[in-house]
Amino acid sequence: MWVRLTAEAIGTAMLLAAIVGSGIMGERLSGGNDGLALLANALATGGVLAALILTFGRISGAHFNPVVTLAEAIRGAVSAREVPAYIGAQLLGAFAGTGLANLMFEMPVFFASTRIRTGGGQWISEAVATFGLVAVIAGCVRFRPGAVAGGVGAYITGVYWFTASTGFANPAVTLARMATDTFAGIRPADAPAFLIAQVTGGLVAALMFRWFDRDLDSGDGPGRS
Amino acid sequence: MWVRLTAEAIGTAMLLAAIVGSGIMGERLSGGNDGLALLANALATGGVLAALILTFGRISGAHFNPVVTLAEAIRGAVSAREVPAYIGAQLLGAFAGTGLANLMFEMPVFFASTRIRTGGGQWISEAVATFGLVAVIAGCVRFRPGAVAGGVGAYITGVYWFTASTGFANPAVTLARMATDTFAGIRPADAPAFLIAQVTGGLVAALMFRWFDRDLDSGDGPGRS
Amino acid sequence: MWVRLTAEAIGTAMLLAAIVGSGIMGERLSGGNDGLALLANALATGGVLAALILTFGRISGAHFNPVVTLAEAIRGAVSAREVPAYIGAQLLGAFAGTGLANLMFEMPVFFASTRIRTGGGQWISEAVATFGLVAVIAGCVRFRPGAVAGGVGAYITGVYWFTASTGFANPAVTLARMATDTFAGIRPADAPAFLIAQVTGGLVAALMFRWFDRDLDSGDGPGRS
Amino acid sequence: MWVRLTAEAIGTAMLLAAIVGSGIMGERLSGGNDGLALLANALATGGVLAALILTFGRISGAHFNPVVTLAEAIRGAVSAREVPAYIGAQLLGAFAGTGLANLMFEMPVFFASTRIRTGGGQWISEAVATFGLVAVIAGCVRFRPGAVAGGVGAYITGVYWFTASTGFANPAVTLARMATDTFAGIRPADAPAFLIAQVTGGLVAALMFRWFDRDLDSGDGPGRS
Repeated sequence: MWVRLTAEAIGTAMLLAAIVGSGIMGERLSGGNDGLALLANALATGGVLAALILTFGRISGAHFNPVVTLAEAIRGAVSAREVPAYIGAQLLGAFAGTGLANLMFEMPVFFASTRIRTGGGQWISEAVATFGLVAVIAGCVRFRPGAVAGGVGAYITGVYWFTASTGFANPAVTLARMATDTFAGIRPADAPAFLIAQVTGGLVAALMFRWFDRDLDSGDGPGRS
Repeated sequence: MWVRLTAEAIGTAMLLAAIVGSGIMGERLSGGNDGLALLANALATGGVLAALILTFGRISGAHFNPVVTLAEAIRGAVSAREVPAYIGAQLLGAFAGTGLANLMFEMPVFFASTRIRTGGGQWISEAVATFGLVAVIAGCVRFRPGAVAGGVGAYITGVYWFTASTGFANPAVTLARMATDTFAGIRPADAPAFLIAQVTGGLVAALMFRWFDRDLDSGDGPGRS
Repeated sequence: MWVRLTAEAIGTAMLLAAIVGSGIMGERLSGGNDGLALLANALATGGVLAALILTFGRISGAHFNPVVTLAEAIRGAVSAREVPAYIGAQLLGAFAGTGLANLMFEMPVFFASTRIRTGGGQWISEAVATFGLVAVIAGCVRFRPGAVAGGVGAYITGVYWFTASTGFANPAVTLARMATDTFAGIRPADAPAFLIAQVTGGLVAALMFRWFDRDLDSGDGPGRS
Repeated sequence: MWVRLTAEAIGTAMLLAAIVGSGIMGERLSGGNDGLALLANALATGGVLAALILTFGRISGAHFNPVVTLAEAIRGAVSAREVPAYIGAQLLGAFAGTGLANLMFEMPVFFASTRIRTGGGQWISEAVATFGLVAVIAGCVRFRPGAVAGGVGAYITGVYWFTASTGFANPAVTLARMATDTFAGIRPADAPAFLIAQVTGGLVAALMFRWFDRDLDSGDGPGRS
């Protein structure tokens, strides 16, 4: 169990280092062009996340995300008593990774973000983004376990661009991004609404796939392989 | 069957959200540089489409495209009576996804596009784009079923750039993109010619692969594995 | 055999359409920034090539390149009498694809390039680029046949950037790119030196892997799986 | 053994050609926008590295990196007496590849870099980057050997962006990059601190995975497949 929690914490720390660090680098190098900064941020996050899922997937499941842990508990892949330990490890890792990114770029370890991210469009965005993330994981885990890393990485690179909120889709990520006043930051006051939207979207996807799974288990024919 | 149609509708909705949403974000962030906007649009669409095929492929076949459904019917993988239900689910999902993208970016749910996309070069482009898409799916489904997602995602990222029309290659996508006056939109008057070109290109590819398949089944030797 | 030659011609045509078309689109949309144009060109070419290898690999071998056909003949995977037919199909397809790209963008079907690409640095570049391409194919075919598409696509995206000639690495592609006076073109007078460099680099790689293969077949231990 | 050392040298040479060459091309074409240059540099390096691991992985292990060779020796996959020969081949290849890139772009074969890369943030960055690289390799080798290439390529593309040093993560690469006064160069005086940070980060990851491996071998349950 300590191995699994260590893997979960270190993976989440590397994920946050990638999100926050590539945001800072993107902003510094893009000469004021936010499109270029977000492109680098999205490609770096998707690539590193895919690599981390390949690295830690068989150890801890590589959730790195409380909503994913909840969805896996609903699916029965994680026991209820493991959920708080997983979420604790994810939060610890997320803040450590944000601090590490801040240190790499020679800024304070933690400093509160002032970046405003609020409004109905952003909340819908977070629900859609998390719905999609949980659906991609549920579909891949059931049908193509070897493709979880590639599928999630590709989805996350895309979600940065097609949601108005740049697709946080992860409560641990959201909370830790309060602690960096850089490109990837979020003002602490705006975080709670993001968390509610994320949990809502994720639960809808988890329940939808539970319906799918039951129906498919009961013997309806599959589609294309 | 309801599971399959739900999967097809939700997958198509997520695809359109990705196409339209990343177009809007691309346009907003690129500071007037359409090349950067199209690059983000292409990478986001290809990534999300690959993830969606991995997610829903074993449930509904993950067509998300009436021409692909027709080609699968020609191949015998979908029965003729399922075709209208599939196309209905795709259209429903496509418009829902476009509306969702518009909402995420705080615009009207539906508003007609004024973006002109017409002329012989664009029509040839749509025929070529759809020919290629159906060929990639047919080749992967027969020889590398596990690679459909990666192959289609990579092809679609490329087709945005090498066709003059940015490669819609999908009638459901074309119709739904009439309902957003943003980067990814198409003027309703220009849609019918796109549909004709798409169906033509797709049928040619489906018939070509039927010839290939019959020849290969009759025992000619394969190439490299 | 007609199926294999048709597959080879159509695949090469789609490859050239991707190279030339994405070059034109890149130049048109990048607002004078050649870096952005080349990035789109490289990503589109790599993505489409990977998809085409997945599509046609089990039919014709998906060479799309006379040097690859020669290397496969040296390896014994293609018979000597098939080589001229393969090269003929590739050339036919390459010019058809270039003409198609020109038509999609409403330019003359064929018009000679005036783009100068010459000098020792470019010739070394073509030898290095083709050496690498043949090595990647030889290594993947022997050890990871399922990864040829991904490996070649990733390599080609990279080779656009790390060689001074943007890595043509393909005589059929080189000859057909003489027929478009756009971003991807090459002045006819500059093509012969490119061909010599490509054949030289490719042969060195093919011979090196023949040495590797013999040594490994004779029972030396492998590295990491 | 000569085959393995040749593979290791040629692979490392191609890797350095990719790093240095795409840096030069990126700087030349990006019109002063360092963000665009780094994006091309990162994508080209990640793509070529993935292709090279697929090509040479089953021959030499495709380390291309003294820290990876050390970590593999700790894991027991490489014998202690092979380590110096591997590192020698890597260094030889690295300098050859840098010289080749300089030649392709018609510059002196070797000329010392004047690019300053120093400070605590950069040293932390190198330790983090190498820790992550060794972890990704260790996790993939144990759990998903077929995904080493994709995982490392995706990670390296990301690491360029999320570390303040652009993630060298490789002593052979660091030393050879002293010999090119271009985008990818590093001032010789700054190299030793990079090497110390890299070895430190890599060893921590290797020891962490040794702990993981022992624990998992002793029968604790796995996570998600």
